[in-house]
Amino acid sequence: MKIVIDCFGGDKSPSANIEGALLALEEHDDLSLVFTGDEEVIKAELDRLGYTGDRAEVVHAPEIITGEDKPTDAIRMKKDSSMIKAITMLRTDKDIAAIVSTGATGALIAAATLRIGRIRGIRRPAFCPLLPTMDGGIVGICDSGANVDISATMLLQQAILGTAYLRHAYGVENPRVALLNVGTESEKGDALRKEAYPMLASCEHINFVGNMESRDLLSGKYDLVVCDGFSGNVLCKTTEGTALELLKKLKKEIFSKTKYKLGALLMKQLFADLKEFMNYQNYGGSVLLGCEKTIVKGHGSSDANAVRVCVNQAYKMSAGGAMNAEVEAALSALDKDKPTDTANS
Amino acid sequence: MKIVIDCFGGDKSPSANIEGALLALEEHDDLSLVFTGDEEVIKAELDRLGYTGDRAEVVHAPEIITGEDKPTDAIRMKKDSSMIKAITMLRTDKDIAAIVSTGATGALIAAATLRIGRIRGIRRPAFCPLLPTMDGGIVGICDSGANVDISATMLLQQAILGTAYLRHAYGVENPRVALLNVGTESEKGDALRKEAYPMLASCEHINFVGNMESRDLLSGKYDLVVCDGFSGNVLCKTTEGTALELLKKLKKEIFSKTKYKLGALLMKQLFADLKEFMNYQNYGGSVLLGCEKTIVKGHGSSDANAVRVCVNQAYKMSAGGAMNAEVEAALSALDKDKPTDTANS
Repeated sequence: MKIVIDCFGGDKSPSANIEGALLALEEHDDLSLVFTGDEEVIKAELDRLGYTGDRAEVVHAPEIITGEDKPTDAIRMKKDSSMIKAITMLRTDKDIAAIVSTGATGALIAAATLRIGRIRGIRRPAFCPLLPTMDGGIVGICDSGANVDISATMLLQQAILGTAYLRHAYGVENPRVALLNVGTESEKGDALRKEAYPMLASCEHINFVGNMESRDLLSGKYDLVVCDGFSGNVLCKTTEGTALELLKKLKKEIFSKTKYKLGALLMKQLFADLKEFMNYQNYGGSVLLGCEKTIVKGHGSSDANAVRVCVNQAYKMSAGGAMNAEVEAALSALDKDKPTDTANS
Repeated sequence: MKIVIDCFGGDKSPSANIEGALLALEEHDDLSLVFTGDEEVIKAELDRLGYTGDRAEVVHAPEIITGEDKPTDAIRMKKDSSMIKAITMLRTDKDIAAIVSTGATGALIAAATLRIGRIRGIRRPAFCPLLPTMDGGIVGICDSGANVDISATMLLQQAILGTAYLRHAYGVENPRVALLNVGTESEKGDALRKEAYPMLASCEHINFVGNMESRDLLSGKYDLVVCDGFSGNVLCKTTEGTALELLKKLKKEIFSKTKYKLGALLMKQLFADLKEFMNYQNYGGSVLLGCEKTIVKGHGSSDANAVRVCVNQAYKMSAGGAMNAEVEAALSALDKDKPTDTANS
């Protein structure tokens, strides 16, 4: 299996991207890598890290897409950027199965949507990051921000995509799918949720368990939550922000009393473990579901370990062929069974 | 000042409601209370608590509205309920300034909207709960769930309402108002946010500071966040849920090692303080802004202290006259200045 690594664009790129990818390379004998970006810089980094193997090639791409670039402009104007070169290779090289990027999100979505084909029947690709649950499992959130204006049919498609993803990449046999809502009762929510609920409830291809209130996200009662990209983004970032702020406050308060400092010394490992537990980067990047090939978007602040996890995630999704076939079959069965919703976007 | 207390409907009602209200009564010499609910039960509770003063009257209302009642049915069918009796008194008795209820949210919104007049020009009342920020301040979230389908004009109205509320009830001179969005850049978001941003930015009656990402809610950089009721609900409940789950996990892990248990003993007070800090009930209920009179909705699980805080909050809003006049003036100036958005709801 061959995976292309977009080496530039993240806060710690290119070092973290290259080092992380090499760490993943060590874990899989059948994996090989393509690094895109400034050739000289990448080669110097490979030298620095002492990589002497033959499973990593470098493709020169001197430009870098930043958050300031308008996505559609970036695709058109920066053809020689590490991201667009990587996407182009993903499209044209049938041996390349996946891309891992920590670059600008908007440009990556635009490039993936315009250059990589979608699974037949899928309206728009959607992000599905994973968060840890308190019982040691994971929960997927789809969509977490790719599509802020969506339809009920898209929510149903996200449920089908996420189900196939969790089954194929994480071995969750029959993922429990919930609809993010303001209450658990079936009639709750805005017009979109009221339209989507019966569609989800009557779909045979997913295991719909009803509405979920956001306070139960980490409870372990759900494997997949479907939502519009706006509230999904709020859901993810609030979880992350609250955990960080709370740990920060705890740390600050510890220094207010000597006995707290002593207690914290004894509990040092526990606090470190808790911080690692809540570090969403340990659970991989946001996979963009719905494309014909695997696209993993690592967080902009990804360190080497975060990139390593992203590459492993892309590797696990190598069963993507079977996964996409399952999604296609479900969508085509749906099309036969029932009319779609009113929105056509 | 006279405040009516809906004694039934919360998980710990009527005891918590009566006890909490009496605690607040002790704090204000010029306050008097009206308790609505089953007279016999309330009087027995007052006896049990040893209340012998003359500043609390009881109005008999034997029915109880529950979460199972359909809001509009509840208003029509349960006229003898503690909530509807309280709302009716609030409407008809000019001496009563406010209601505090821990009962069913939907019924309270419906009753308030239908029975209590709105401030002239306000389209729909909105909930504005408060959360603690990490620098020791508070942040208001408006709307947190009353209106799940809204327009840009309603977002602007919420900004004006919340600003007046924080100024008059909490002394925040010039509240920093942010729009909840998926990114901080001005062009971010869905169609609703794109329409609302320039309206907020050009409004002279508020101190708009731009978009806020949900991860910064507790940062202390904002005094008021405006949002639709769907994502506002997600924002509040995710904050609450993450904090609770994290503290629960910490508590559980402490028992895994002896040294953690020792450390936790030393830090016992700090953990208790942290839990109290994150206990949103300490910051009062969700005020329903936009009505002619003060409506404070306490959480269904409110204990006596939470009810006490809610009553104090209702008391602080006694300057409601001036607050409502300020909102009315701002709305009428807006109407003169510019066209409203396309949505008319």
